[in-house]
Order: sequence, then structure tokens, then C-alpha cells
Amino acid sequence: MGLFAKDIATMDDLFVHQLKDIYYAEKRITKSLPTMIEKATSPELKQGFQKHLGETENHVRRLEQVFRMHGVEPAAVTCAAIDGILEEADEVAGEVKDKEVLDAALAAAAQAVEHYEITRYGTLIAWARELGRSDCADVLKQTLDEEKATDAKLTQLAESRINRKAAA
Amino acid sequence: MGLFAKDIATMDDLFVHQLKDIYYAEKRITKSLPTMIEKATSPELKQGFQKHLGETENHVRRLEQVFRMHGVEPAAVTCAAIDGILEEADEVAGEVKDKEVLDAALAAAAQAVEHYEITRYGTLIAWARELGRSDCADVLKQTLDEEKATDAKLTQLAESRINRKAAA
Repeated sequence: MGLFAKDIATMDDLFVHQLKDIYYAEKRITKSLPTMIEKATSPELKQGFQKHLGETENHVRRLEQVFRMHGVEPAAVTCAAIDGILEEADEVAGEVKDKEVLDAALAAAAQAVEHYEITRYGTLIAWARELGRSDCADVLKQTLDEEKATDAKLTQLAESRINRKAAA
Repeated sequence: MGLFAKDIATMDDLFVHQLKDIYYAEKRITKSLPTMIEKATSPELKQGFQKHLGETENHVRRLEQVFRMHGVEPAAVTCAAIDGILEEADEVAGEVKDKEVLDAALAAAAQAVEHYEITRYGTLIAWARELGRSDCADVLKQTLDEEKATDAKLTQLAESRINRKAAA
């Protein structure tokens, strides 16, 4: 949310600014996922990232729809949070040698991304409702549900690793 | 997770590194919460942050306990993710003039912090179990439950704002 506060006087300004923050984040994620797909070795993880890339491209389009529904041109503002989260993810993706350890680290990085999106979409939906824009809230809710489903799948993957180890 | 990957060869290394990342994050949060308490105007939000500061100090101690249970000296590594999340929070706290808008922005920033912690503790618990350290997982789970409760309270606060507006 760079340059965040100086422009914010009303809840409407806050809503639009948060839209710009997550718009930046979603676009940044579409650029990071191809590297994560390439680095992942487990087929489930690779496929999961691939599916999520398609979803993320759709999330970008949905945000553009919400901007326009709200009468604002789509625009991004730098989001230091997602930059930090993806900086950590890139470090992992580039360097860990062991495939199993790398997959675990990549899945954890992806869950950190999902949780950032879950919190921001949750906030945006609450603010849209507060502003009487349940139409915008409904569109944003579709994305939130997909982010939560992705997070749940990543948790399942982590749990299946534990069960495999316990059975070994 | 600065300097993350070069030191990571095994799941145990990954677990310890993630502990160091969240240890840095928790200590950083104890330094940011006093400013958020000072800036918040709603009594519920102020009290919520105050209570969470006490909990966060306890989370730092619990992490030190887990380090020692695992035979490692407590240490922190820079966590770019929490730095980015708190950088956004600080911008909001410093600049938004309208009290109600500021409270909404502060609560949203706090939820972003909580979600970062929720994802990292979730991962740490899974990895502790994978490593056969259910004793460490049990201690970490106590903190995870408190982070989730704080997030739920912040969601309630946001919803009560919507209901007040709807009734007004």
C-alpha cells in the first residue's frame, strides 16, 4: 500500500486503495507462479500451481470488473507485503537442492501468499458491504472462495506428506 | 526468511529456519503494536490490540521454549514478509486523519499480520509432526489458536461496523 495514507479521507478511498493493493499483488503473483511451477517436483504441487495460475489470471480480470463497477479505472499501487512474501518464496525456489525439502518450502510459500490474499479479500468484502456495494462484494467473494480452496489443498498436501512419513 | 535457502538441506533445517523467521516476526510485532494501540480510537480495537500485545510477548517466549525443546539456541532471521506487512500498517497508522477510517485501516492491517502468523504456525505444526516432534507441535498449536481467535475478533469488529451502518 505504498503512498497509501495521504490520499485516504473516506471509507470509499480506503476501499479503492485496497483494491489497487491487491490488484498489484495478483499481477505480481501471475509473474511468480511460472517459476514456482518450474521448480516444483511433486506432480500434485506442479498441477496445483498450474491450476492456480489460471485462477489468478481470472482474479486480475475480476478486479478490473470491480474497479469498473465502482466507476474507477483499474490501477495498481506497490504492495510491500506481497513483495516481501514473494521475495522469501523466490529465495527458496532458487536455492534449496533437495527436491522434497524444496517442495515443502514452495508449498509453504504458496500458503503465505494465499493467506495474504484471504485477509485482503475478506477486508474488501466487508468494506464493499459497508459502502452498500454488495454487487462488488459478490464478485470479490468468488475469488475469496477460490483462494481458500487453494489454501485447503496445500494443507492437504502437507498432511499427506506427514501420513506417508508415519506409514514409512 | 533472509539468507534462507543456502543453509537448508533437510526438513529439520527448514523447520528451524521457519522458527527463526516467525521469531523475528513476533519480536517485530511487539514493537509495532504499541503504535497501533496509540493510534486506535475505538475502545474495542484499542483493548483488542492491548490484549494481543500481551499474547504476542508470550508467543515470543513460547518460541524460545520450542527452540530449546528442539536443542537449538533461539535466533532470528530477517523476515521480508512481516517487514512489508508492517511497513504498510505503519503508513496507515501515521497518516489517515479520519478516526473511523483509521480504525478500519488499522484493523485490516492487524488481520494481515494475523494471517501471516496463521499460515506460518500452520506450516510449523505440520513440519514438527513430520519430524516426529508432536511435543513442539503442541506448544505451537497454543499460539496458532490465539492468533485465530484474534483474527476472528477483528472480523467481528468489521461486521459490527457494517451492522451499525445498516441500522443507521
